[in-house]
Amino acid sequence: MPTQFGSPIYKGHQSGFDSSAVAILRAAGALIFGKTTTTEFTVSNSGPDTTNPHNPNRTPGGSSCGSAAAVADYQVPLSLGSQTGGSVIRPASFTGVFAMKPTYNAILIEGQKTFAPTFDTLGFFARSVEDLQLLADAFALVDDKTPGEIPLKEVSVAVMKTPMWPEAGPGSIAAMNKAAAILKSRGAQVEEVTFPTEVNDYVVLKGSQKVILGGEAQASFLREYWIDKANLAAEICDLVENTANYTNKERMEAFDAYARMRNAVNNLAENYSVILAPSAVDEAPLGLDDMGSAAFNTMWTASDFLKLHLVHHSLTLQQGFHMAVIHIPAFIGANGMPVGISLVAPRFRDQHLLKVNKILGDALMAEGGWKV
Amino acid sequence: MPTQFGSPIYKGHQSGFDSSAVAILRAAGALIFGKTTTTEFTVSNSGPDTTNPHNPNRTPGGSSCGSAAAVADYQVPLSLGSQTGGSVIRPASFTGVFAMKPTYNAILIEGQKTFAPTFDTLGFFARSVEDLQLLADAFALVDDKTPGEIPLKEVSVAVMKTPMWPEAGPGSIAAMNKAAAILKSRGAQVEEVTFPTEVNDYVVLKGSQKVILGGEAQASFLREYWIDKANLAAEICDLVENTANYTNKERMEAFDAYARMRNAVNNLAENYSVILAPSAVDEAPLGLDDMGSAAFNTMWTASDFLKLHLVHHSLTLQQGFHMAVIHIPAFIGANGMPVGISLVAPRFRDQHLLKVNKILGDALMAEGGWKV
Repeated sequence: MPTQFGSPIYKGHQSGFDSSAVAILRAAGALIFGKTTTTEFTVSNSGPDTTNPHNPNRTPGGSSCGSAAAVADYQVPLSLGSQTGGSVIRPASFTGVFAMKPTYNAILIEGQKTFAPTFDTLGFFARSVEDLQLLADAFALVDDKTPGEIPLKEVSVAVMKTPMWPEAGPGSIAAMNKAAAILKSRGAQVEEVTFPTEVNDYVVLKGSQKVILGGEAQASFLREYWIDKANLAAEICDLVENTANYTNKERMEAFDAYARMRNAVNNLAENYSVILAPSAVDEAPLGLDDMGSAAFNTMWTASDFLKLHLVHHSLTLQQGFHMAVIHIPAFIGANGMPVGISLVAPRFRDQHLLKVNKILGDALMAEGGWKV
Repeated sequence: MPTQFGSPIYKGHQSGFDSSAVAILRAAGALIFGKTTTTEFTVSNSGPDTTNPHNPNRTPGGSSCGSAAAVADYQVPLSLGSQTGGSVIRPASFTGVFAMKPTYNAILIEGQKTFAPTFDTLGFFARSVEDLQLLADAFALVDDKTPGEIPLKEVSVAVMKTPMWPEAGPGSIAAMNKAAAILKSRGAQVEEVTFPTEVNDYVVLKGSQKVILGGEAQASFLREYWIDKANLAAEICDLVENTANYTNKERMEAFDAYARMRNAVNNLAENYSVILAPSAVDEAPLGLDDMGSAAFNTMWTASDFLKLHLVHHSLTLQQGFHMAVIHIPAFIGANGMPVGISLVAPRFRDQHLLKVNKILGDALMAEGGWKV
């Protein structure tokens, strides 16, 4: 099967060896149907010709655009994607399908192209929580405690609008409010919660993010840069050349800052069954040249450099913090396009998250309006 | 070229695609001579028939045994290895060659088999510091500040015998003492330094180590386990099945503990030009069934589980702490076999470490006795 990483450098390339994830799925009996498109090395924000199945004039979102579109378009029931920033959750929201980004490093990414090893995570797209469950089991995700049945009235939901809430579009505002209202009306304990102080420091957070991405990308694309930089997107060359002048000292400080924030958010999440958070700014925007506005995420990534070049890798809270996330495509925006929400659990509580999502997802899908 | 990972599962396997590191070396003009043996997936401690070039009755050390032996035996001037525990530094010590384990994540390990992503690091073997420098430059390792010339009398050396010093054999004791004496006699500032308190807590350190390795190995070998577990070493099956019953909670605590210790050691190292530390317990032991005793490292990894199964992955201080390390093969043990020492620098000071090693290495090699 061709493996081109969305790059002209690898045109026609056949890898000849399954990635770890694909080999595990084959061993579990999956039929591998094909490979889908991504933006160039999942870095660029404009990409292949893939359109949004619900409106060909709108982007499916990036970088795992093909995987999201293939599931939304009924071509396959399940697909894989990778998320360094928002590359699974955002296209799932734009195309109206379910998606899961399991805990970081709970699934091996061996055999996949690397962007930033500190963040890169395998994710999956599906048409139901049950189908996400199939893959979670195939990948042997195990919680410390096998989650039991939880009646909806014992589910506690922390509504976290996140520090960038003022940037949310009407679709996401409505989705978050409706989701909270539906869950409350069905008896769940719903509580609005703000981020721990450590994490509300935008300056630290956005700085840490861009420094780690930039630093790690230097090594990740050195191969392609040396082999054929003329065919490498300008923004990737900039990363390899470190035109932003990130220092290693900043990188180490960023690791430390992220480790502290990760713990703070994880510890907070342990007090609730799940966190409810936005998945994207709004419906998929018009046009195919831009895989999605970063407006909703600028507080996390607002530097000129990232604004220009890494907009689709705007960081969602679930990614840098290594937590488990499921996207529920329950709602409809002003233009009839899907708008979803994210449910988030602490690290290594993937099975718990699936269990809670089955209950909450059923409720949200029943009343939200969007049909998968 | 065959890529078998030391496993019968991959007998005759041809990857068809270079790893990132190999592709970068090709682009830099390197001639790729062949692939060398490793122990099974770099996990097992008994391995291929590779012998120590200086005595065929002695082990070359694992897991990167073939790469070390090929350089020691003048078959190639340079080779690559991977270190999750001590898999580069130890075989370099046993076979009497130079080696470098650069800062973690400064070189992309894409295309290599994964054992524990939090520790796995590419390393290289060579016959001189100049040759290590060639590879460091090919991999574009860059310090924040380009290191200038340092006169030997301005070099400060922190002698760190590490908490497991009582376990050192006569060869390593003599090597450390001689190294310190030579450097002092030539005018370097040599000071004996103990580890920061956080890191002298053996219980936390050894616990953190085994939990992270065990946790990550579950995902790393799931593919082979599901495809052909009958041909997978028993100790690797144990890892995938988590027979040691490590919990995810322990794993997260271990990440935190390691992050704290990493900073403590790194900050201490910033006060000196380099740290001088032992590379292995002593000369290469007799026999080929055991790639090296873990005695020297038991304080770091002393659990029944690791004693039995992961002895060659005994952790050296340089690995879990992500720091840059160069091995200098300067000395000779009681049986005429090589015994080396390690020089260690803070993270992302690889070029500085090379510079200092050129000076210190010349001094140690001139007086130490071992000739490469």
